[in-house]
This record gives sequence, structure tokens and C-alpha cells, in this order.
Amino acid sequence: MSKNKNGSVTLVGAGPGDPELLTLRAARALQEADVILYDRLVAPEILDFARRQAKRLLVGKTGYGPSCRQDDINARMVALARAGKRVVRLKGGDPMIFGRASEEIAACRAAGIAVEVVPGITAAQGAASRLGVSLTERGLARRVQYVTGHAANGRLPDDIDWASVADPAVTTVVYMPARTLAELAARAAAAGLAASTPALAVVRATRADERTIAGTILDLPARLAAEADEGPMLVLMGRVLARIVAQADDADDAAPAQTAAARVS
Amino acid sequence: MSKNKNGSVTLVGAGPGDPELLTLRAARALQEADVILYDRLVAPEILDFARRQAKRLLVGKTGYGPSCRQDDINARMVALARAGKRVVRLKGGDPMIFGRASEEIAACRAAGIAVEVVPGITAAQGAASRLGVSLTERGLARRVQYVTGHAANGRLPDDIDWASVADPAVTTVVYMPARTLAELAARAAAAGLAASTPALAVVRATRADERTIAGTILDLPARLAAEADEGPMLVLMGRVLARIVAQADDADDAAPAQTAAARVS
Repeated sequence: MSKNKNGSVTLVGAGPGDPELLTLRAARALQEADVILYDRLVAPEILDFARRQAKRLLVGKTGYGPSCRQDDINARMVALARAGKRVVRLKGGDPMIFGRASEEIAACRAAGIAVEVVPGITAAQGAASRLGVSLTERGLARRVQYVTGHAANGRLPDDIDWASVADPAVTTVVYMPARTLAELAARAAAAGLAASTPALAVVRATRADERTIAGTILDLPARLAAEADEGPMLVLMGRVLARIVAQADDADDAAPAQTAAARVS
Repeated sequence: MSKNKNGSVTLVGAGPGDPELLTLRAARALQEADVILYDRLVAPEILDFARRQAKRLLVGKTGYGPSCRQDDINARMVALARAGKRVVRLKGGDPMIFGRASEEIAACRAAGIAVEVVPGITAAQGAASRLGVSLTERGLARRVQYVTGHAANGRLPDDIDWASVADPAVTTVVYMPARTLAELAARAAAAGLAASTPALAVVRATRADERTIAGTILDLPARLAAEADEGPMLVLMGRVLARIVAQADDADDAAPAQTAAARVS
């Protein structure tokens, strides 16, 4: 299919952080790559799966940069594949969920480059497994949804369906919430979501230094501001988190200076 | 943590079907297991990762069985772990998304059995990667959600938030839609979702014999009924699927008896 003497692009989901949460297919793609273009959010240990000769290029997207960065990445990816390289574009989590994969796929297609996508475990899935919390626990949540906390301009998207966030029977995962969580929580509460709805921030989900910060949708933003942890984060909201948040409160009572980390069993 | 001489339970996400979409951690858990309790929906090739001596037990949940089956599975899992076995409970997709993992975790905890969860790639993620469709493409979808097409009684859940499904800026993934899709589509349309909204059924996502059946939310139920394919299926709905569905229509025009399978590039 490629018109470019075996040059190709594989978009690979790096998963949430724990290198063992890479898929077998992702590990193989890394071992076969000539060049790896990776995001800043990819855990360094993941790159160790690449063969020694592979060139590793940090393309440095933080999620907040100007949108022209995406064009630069696309151009670089296409140029390398045109030069015959097997290019892996390594992205945190899953490329197809808030990963801007569609723009990268479109750039490859426009250039006649063969492109494949390898899915990855999302940070939400990694966090749920570590916490032992089903995102769709029967009787508590009929639905799970991922929303983004920031639009292209870095602000809260102006077209969030607030009723869908206010539904008591949903588990909502907010991506890139750091700058907009207080506003998001306030608008969800205004739309009818109970202020006491449990909420949990997970920083560096599944990594050795994972941290969780528990609260309600209304007090979590202030707790997060006090922590000032700059690591990759997501926020989970909904009734399925009640037990975990209650455990964290108990731990807070026992040792007020500590943030409780919840683990299965 | 275990009180049961090293007996343990690991809930493992088997992913959507392609064995290469297993995580490294999942493959290791299979290699270390004494006993594997697996669902009917798990692809047979996945079980090949288990060591030869491991006992493989089909626990046969189809998703439509009576709910007492879950109690039987819990009891069996706990009994094996109490006997000192390293038990893997292998589930299609991700255990934490419509996998009833919370009931199995609770059973282990109540029995004092150490329990760990290994996430898996969902069928939706696998399908999106194969199709080259971002579930959250900028400008088309701000949100992605997973809903279930059947409640404990096998019917459409009576508390679905229809407005959240009718939102034009969402991608909705319907799990276990076979028996209820027509009613679900009709109610989403009644709540305001455009009847022309693209919809795609994916049967046996990521397996060698994966099939896609394309349409709109209103005509897909009839197309599915005509196909009568009994494999594991999910339905994706939303604007992000427009290109794929249009391609399938073109293919239908060219070869009306064929169902178009869409692939990246």
C-alpha cells in the first residue's frame, strides 16, 4: 500500500505509564521502529522497549501548546516515512481518545503513507484497575464517559453537554482538568449534579509514584490547587468512587498531612 | 495480604480479540496462573498464552444468562484461591467496563483473598484503531461514552439518560446492543438525535474475521437483523463515523451483496 519504499507510520498507544500495560503489539512496533516520535507524557521506561538503534525524538506536546505544533509533528512524521523509515508515533494512553490521532492519520493519508493504529490502555482504565473500582458498577453507573477539560484555546470547551455530566448514573472521566476543574465542577453542579458527588484526581496513574487526591466535585479543585502536583492527571467523578473517597477521608483523619493512595485489597 | 497460602485472584482484561492486544502484564498473569476461569467471549488464541499445566475452565457467561451465574463464578473463584491456587479470571475487553468486576472483587475481599486487576483494551478501542477513527475527533466529538444496551433483565435499561445520547457532539458506544438497538435508536431519535447519525456495528472487533455493518441509527437495526451474525458485537454512533459509513455505502453500491470492511489506509 505504501508508495514510499517501506516507509510507514504506526500510531502507538503507550498506555498510562506502567510499562507492563503496553500491549504486545505496541512492544513489537517499538522493537521494529527506525524512529520514535514521542510525547512528553510518555513514561521513559516505555522507550526502553525500542531497539537500541532506534532514534528517539521528543516532540514535546504538553496539551497546552499552540496548535501549530501539531502541524510540525505531522510534517516531521511524513518526511521520515517518505525517507523510508518505519516511524512510530508514540502517544500516552490511547491514540483514539483525546490523542489528536485523526489529524496525524489524515496527514499520512494525504501523503500516501501507510498508517496503522495500535490502541493503548487509557489512564482512566489504569486508574480504575489500581483502585479496584468498576467504572460501570451495576446499580451505580449505567454509563461511563470521557470528556476533555480544555478546548483548543486551553479553556473549558463551550459546548459541553452539562446535563450529561449532571446525570447521577454516570461515571465521568475528565482529561486535562488542571486549569478548568473548578469551573467544570461549578457548571456541573449548576446543571444539577449533587455537590457531594465523590471525585478523585489521579496523578501519574499506574506509575510507581502514582498519587490520588480524593474529595467531592466541589472541594477537589481547592485540594488540587493546594497540592500543586504538575504530573499528568485525570479526574474521575461519580457514585462508583464513594468507597474509595470514604477510605481516603479515614486515612486523612489518621494522618492529616498525607494523601491516601488507594489500592485493591 | 492473602491469608490463603499464596492463593490469589487476578482479574485480567483479555482485550477485544486480537491476541497481540493483550497487555504484557496480562500475558504474564496467564503464564503464572494455576487456573484460568474464562468467559465464552474470550478469543481462544488468548488462552494459548497460559502455561501448559494451567487448568482452563469455561465459566460460560454470555451476558444474557440468569444473574445467579455470577454467584457461581464468585464462589468457584474464591474456593480455588482458598485452596492456594493462583486464579486468573479472564474477561473480554476491560474488566472495569461492563465486566461485573465489582461483584468479583467484593467476593474476594469478603473472603480475605488478595485480588488484583489488569486492564484490557476495550472492543471499542480495538475497533476505533482498526477503522482509523478517533472517538473524540476535534470539531466532531467532545465526549465519548460507553452505554449498555441491556439491563440485568435483558431489556433496555430504563434509566438511560437519553439527552446524553441525543447530543450531536458525542460518540456513543453501545455494549450488547443486539436485542435492544432498534428501541435504543428510536428513543435517541425521539430525544433529538438526527435520524441520519452514522452508526456502525462491529462484530468480532480486531479478530481475523471482524465484520462491520454500516448505516444510520435508524436503518442499522434492520441491517443487523438481516445479517443475523451472532458474534460479539458493539455499535458505534456519532459524526466521527461519517467517513467510514460513506465508504461502506460506496462499497455497497459497487458490490451490493458484500458488507464493506473498513481498514486504515
